[in-house]
Amino acid sequence: MVCPNRYDWKRLEQFATAIFVRAGVSTRDAETVARSLVHADLRGVHSHGLARMPVYVERISGGLIDFSKAPVILRKAGATAVVDGMNHLGAVVGEAALQTAIEIAGKNGTAIVGVRCSNHFGACSYYAEQAIQKGMILFVMSNAPQTMAPTGGIRPFFGSNPIAAGIPAGSAPPFLLDMATTVAARGKIALARKKGEAIPKGWAIDERGRDTTDPAEALRGALLPIGGAKGYGIAMFVDILCGLLAGAGYGPGVHSLYDNDEHPQNVGHFFWALQIESFMPLPLFQQRMDQYIQQIKAEPKAEGREEILIPGEWEWRTAKERQVSGVPLPDTVVCELAALGSTWGVELEDARIQ
Amino acid sequence: MVCPNRYDWKRLEQFATAIFVRAGVSTRDAETVARSLVHADLRGVHSHGLARMPVYVERISGGLIDFSKAPVILRKAGATAVVDGMNHLGAVVGEAALQTAIEIAGKNGTAIVGVRCSNHFGACSYYAEQAIQKGMILFVMSNAPQTMAPTGGIRPFFGSNPIAAGIPAGSAPPFLLDMATTVAARGKIALARKKGEAIPKGWAIDERGRDTTDPAEALRGALLPIGGAKGYGIAMFVDILCGLLAGAGYGPGVHSLYDNDEHPQNVGHFFWALQIESFMPLPLFQQRMDQYIQQIKAEPKAEGREEILIPGEWEWRTAKERQVSGVPLPDTVVCELAALGSTWGVELEDARIQ
Repeated sequence: MVCPNRYDWKRLEQFATAIFVRAGVSTRDAETVARSLVHADLRGVHSHGLARMPVYVERISGGLIDFSKAPVILRKAGATAVVDGMNHLGAVVGEAALQTAIEIAGKNGTAIVGVRCSNHFGACSYYAEQAIQKGMILFVMSNAPQTMAPTGGIRPFFGSNPIAAGIPAGSAPPFLLDMATTVAARGKIALARKKGEAIPKGWAIDERGRDTTDPAEALRGALLPIGGAKGYGIAMFVDILCGLLAGAGYGPGVHSLYDNDEHPQNVGHFFWALQIESFMPLPLFQQRMDQYIQQIKAEPKAEGREEILIPGEWEWRTAKERQVSGVPLPDTVVCELAALGSTWGVELEDARIQ
Repeated sequence: MVCPNRYDWKRLEQFATAIFVRAGVSTRDAETVARSLVHADLRGVHSHGLARMPVYVERISGGLIDFSKAPVILRKAGATAVVDGMNHLGAVVGEAALQTAIEIAGKNGTAIVGVRCSNHFGACSYYAEQAIQKGMILFVMSNAPQTMAPTGGIRPFFGSNPIAAGIPAGSAPPFLLDMATTVAARGKIALARKKGEAIPKGWAIDERGRDTTDPAEALRGALLPIGGAKGYGIAMFVDILCGLLAGAGYGPGVHSLYDNDEHPQNVGHFFWALQIESFMPLPLFQQRMDQYIQQIKAEPKAEGREEILIPGEWEWRTAKERQVSGVPLPDTVVCELAALGSTWGVELEDARIQ
């Protein structure tokens, strides 16, 4: 039986690349953005996959993303650097920052790269995965448009400010944590409102700062951070490094990807790379990781649980499976991409597995 | 009116120093440990203050801490270093690692220092505060004896694995986040059992992995991480850097401070220092921080909230106040310290504010 809604990941990349190229982006940059988006769909993280393509293209067409100038390294000092994204596509900026971090860490054992004037750069895991393949540990963060209130406040001030960490293993799946510092994504709350469903307590507060399970009230209020004041602290830490220190926007200075058609986003990122070989031979570390992961997975299970998963393991398996049997895109995404394709004269059907 | 239970912080440091010195520790090292403990009491974090002194001294007497050899820098490579704590007192090891990180970051803009063979090193904030005073950003973490289960498991495997970050401001209080990756401390659950009180849902699971509000069941089960699988991921990240990479114990290889009188703890730490001047002049950054903090504090408040606090602000204020009017030690701590003092011939009463 052929699943009617499965797409070949390589051909999805070609589809996305072709559209970006027709929108004026260079082939190389278009390929980078396409890879970062399909990476997320492969991992089952559709919120950061091709679903973002229409708005990326819209912002290109609206002149809010500028791909005419490549990101530049503003300054290198010791094991640190600052990259100016020049308002290019976020994934292109992120890729430039990652390569800078890997190069510096190769020489100095570690590297810190702050990034300003960027845009939504896709899933953090895209960068972490590449660092893993180079035998490096990567800790990457990004600030984001406001959705979360500070503890004690009621109005969104911080974004979901994600943090991610990638650590290589040997034969075991690598450690790959990629998480928002909010409990839930705003998109999930919007979906609950659409379906007329309540949301769990602990996701959001209303306009007066009270816990709410009403998605409409939550959308007028603010998202809650994980762990209460702890998550607020982490989100603020991310905002300070990505924004104040790297020289990007911060707090309300990071503009929305969707609701702002006047200003570039001015997102900031922060990359910290660490070369394992500065501490021990990579194969020894990989062996330790494999044993450690086995040890955790062998721990006794909670009632009703068959398996203990390592961070990123489900996504890793999903990607392996989808590379073989195709990517099942959500129906709404298929509709949007098909429409986008027809606007730019690129056929989504060509990527479908027949 | 004189509060009967207030102690002068400087004289508390002298009290603790005198006991450590009588137990054989050098004056300089004794002063370091005393400072780290009183630092926590000043900030109102009594769980990491002088309450730890009796067990520190017990482990010294039992030969489980070895202060005969100073911590050594095993290896320096680029902007990274590995410190072997030589099983010295944790605060002495932490201080050595911090100074190494500050020195390397001064030359390279950033520094990574992994630490092995250490012991409980007190509150992470002690190190973050010192880095702040040097105009640096510090991110510090430590692994710890097992209290938390991996998501899907039931048995403690990770510790409360704290992370902390310090960032200087100008005239505003600095940003100082210092948090366990568990929702609650095990000590709080033990206290609830003692008082016969229930614990909030979300703190712990029982031996079968089910949510529990019974502190006795929780103590037989495991603590829960913040944010579910997200906190599990952070705790594992901390354990990998502090343990596997730095060469210390990890998972069940980190031994208890209290319940293990046979093995050194072999705790691992990880210090990441960042020199602000590599990014921008410190005064400019401090000015940005002040404005940013003012902006957050000026946000509208939730019902019943008078103020929005910055991470570490309450502790910062508490310390300022206690430096002037004395440290109110909990009664149980007073009893334990008085007994310890009488064993070693040092009078706690001398530190009391009359």
